[in-house]
Amino acid sequence: MSIKDRVAVIGVGLTKFGEHFQWSADDMLVDACYAAFADAGIQPKDIKAAWVGTSRSGAAGVTLADPLKLYGIPITRVENYCASGMDAFRNACFAVAAGMYDIALACGVEKLKDTAARGLGSFGRHPLIGYGRTPPSVFALAATRYFYQFGIDKRALAKVAVKNHHNGAKHPKAHLRMEIDEERVLSAPMICSPLGLFDCCPTTDGSAAVIVARPEVAKSLGHPYTLVKGLGLAVETGEPFHKPGFDYVGFPATTKAANEAYAMAGITAKDIAFAEVHDCFTITELLDIEDLGFCPKGTAGQFVAEGKANLDGAVAINPSGGLKSFGHPIGATGCRMVSEVHNQLLGRAEGYQVKNPRFGLAHNLGGAGAVGSVAILGAA
Amino acid sequence: MSIKDRVAVIGVGLTKFGEHFQWSADDMLVDACYAAFADAGIQPKDIKAAWVGTSRSGAAGVTLADPLKLYGIPITRVENYCASGMDAFRNACFAVAAGMYDIALACGVEKLKDTAARGLGSFGRHPLIGYGRTPPSVFALAATRYFYQFGIDKRALAKVAVKNHHNGAKHPKAHLRMEIDEERVLSAPMICSPLGLFDCCPTTDGSAAVIVARPEVAKSLGHPYTLVKGLGLAVETGEPFHKPGFDYVGFPATTKAANEAYAMAGITAKDIAFAEVHDCFTITELLDIEDLGFCPKGTAGQFVAEGKANLDGAVAINPSGGLKSFGHPIGATGCRMVSEVHNQLLGRAEGYQVKNPRFGLAHNLGGAGAVGSVAILGAA
Repeated sequence: MSIKDRVAVIGVGLTKFGEHFQWSADDMLVDACYAAFADAGIQPKDIKAAWVGTSRSGAAGVTLADPLKLYGIPITRVENYCASGMDAFRNACFAVAAGMYDIALACGVEKLKDTAARGLGSFGRHPLIGYGRTPPSVFALAATRYFYQFGIDKRALAKVAVKNHHNGAKHPKAHLRMEIDEERVLSAPMICSPLGLFDCCPTTDGSAAVIVARPEVAKSLGHPYTLVKGLGLAVETGEPFHKPGFDYVGFPATTKAANEAYAMAGITAKDIAFAEVHDCFTITELLDIEDLGFCPKGTAGQFVAEGKANLDGAVAINPSGGLKSFGHPIGATGCRMVSEVHNQLLGRAEGYQVKNPRFGLAHNLGGAGAVGSVAILGAA
Repeated sequence: MSIKDRVAVIGVGLTKFGEHFQWSADDMLVDACYAAFADAGIQPKDIKAAWVGTSRSGAAGVTLADPLKLYGIPITRVENYCASGMDAFRNACFAVAAGMYDIALACGVEKLKDTAARGLGSFGRHPLIGYGRTPPSVFALAATRYFYQFGIDKRALAKVAVKNHHNGAKHPKAHLRMEIDEERVLSAPMICSPLGLFDCCPTTDGSAAVIVARPEVAKSLGHPYTLVKGLGLAVETGEPFHKPGFDYVGFPATTKAANEAYAMAGITAKDIAFAEVHDCFTITELLDIEDLGFCPKGTAGQFVAEGKANLDGAVAINPSGGLKSFGHPIGATGCRMVSEVHNQLLGRAEGYQVKNPRFGLAHNLGGAGAVGSVAILGAA
């Protein structure tokens, strides 16, 4: 039995992503969730259960219960590194598909601007910095190997940054809303060779919320909605770069999650009109494009260079502007991606709308490829 | 639609609970999960998805993937304070009931002996110590109020300790396997008045695992199994003791979770033969007994004194020995309770077996009453 078409997305909400020193994580959750309630045309009391994804900005279900005064209902905190948000969405979908709740809330939040350094330090042995490696340094290894193996260079990465900032400049909720050109990317300060400043997503505060419901409930509400077609999650080792056989040019967790999601949806990568993918770094987007099956291994640079990832390309990649424009408030990102896919499918992405999409995909990566998560939505 | 009878428990496993300075959290997860695989008669490769509950002993799904080399499948980390383990079980049940996976693993772990103080300190504002209050001091407030309101004293609490240690002395996996008498409880060093040493559960390392499956799969395996009859979870504020109207003598989260679980199971408290309840402190067990509906508010002391909570009583409370005997390795406790209920229902609790039980209940409390979680299992 599959849960295809058994869960509907009926509303989404985002904070403005950015540097919100004036906002707490609580403030951002309220902002995003109430936007989603309004979008779905429901009241907080209609929420029968909730899942909140956060890495460092809360503990337990009270992370959500207290700011929203959403007391007396089940709320689960899900944490799966940078894929926490999409895994919160996935678990909410399971509960709705199981028939437990008519309407459920999935949301995510992270406050990074004033706590990031402390947060990463306390990860201990687990993620990157535990072994003295920061995220840019790990993904730089992948870029270096990819360059060597497939004969491209920094200019291919720059085209990813230019494309995503072009898209993000039109998105009212993006953190960085500015066009950039290749020259600016290539001359930017080096962060970790070969990744320069514009190869890295910014450090950002934000929250995102998604309301899911049984399709019959969605229909009865009379609002537009989309349907969950496929879900996939795969976990590999927490240290993929240490795993024997790891080739540095792709993440098996992404491919496995995508295959699970495609199988559930009964489609292939060819059926996807657009995808929000995890471009924490420009090199990551190239790996994602290949891991998700949109083009053969080693050809994503060319795919982007030829405009196939543009809004009007074969598969629009990150029409929202991606993490490059939104930053990556850890727990929020997965729900933001699902929100983007929902809005595109409903034709509500003014200024960055993909033409008549039927299926959209969201891809959230956790750790340095430790966790891959994929959700596919389709028009109802 | 309810998920009653749509999920089976097919195997359980526990580490010996205790002071395991020689073991890491990884070691304990391997020990508990492989015991559960053996109990279910399955191989690790049969696990199609997993949920791991932990508060401080890991991050993301890799918490489980790495020690078990369980790569390439979906693994979610769930965190809900001291109820993390049972919420991991709950989410695994939803996914199986939704038809996503034939066989799934729910487990929990905590390494407390060498990290507890640091762990609690890093909770920040959220739980108890964030406001300068430790768990004993918070539950001592409840005890003091309960004494005042219902006219009992420390001797009523001592009977809880005596009963639970009596049961736990017979359980091979318990941390403290010793009988104690009331005199010893009453003369023990004071921790936080009126709670003495034997009113508090010990600080313990441990792990527990539960395998769930679709009932048709359970049947085909030919092993004994039990069925999930009811599940409930409720979250209140993270600071219940600060909430206007809080009466200090019961936790609404427990009652709400229990009502949800009873309704799903189509039974009432009267149908429960035994219950594993969250006796982090002796006073907590009295509150639990009332919150779960086993006797009217204010009468739990008498209920215990009259032997109604004994193994051969009206409702055996903590036949395993409870947290008083097992300690409370945070993420592990909820799965341990489900494991105990499963074994009792299958008649496998040698030495502490309840006679012919039909329904058993597990109750896991998180925070100082912030999270209530209840699971009801029944004979297949």
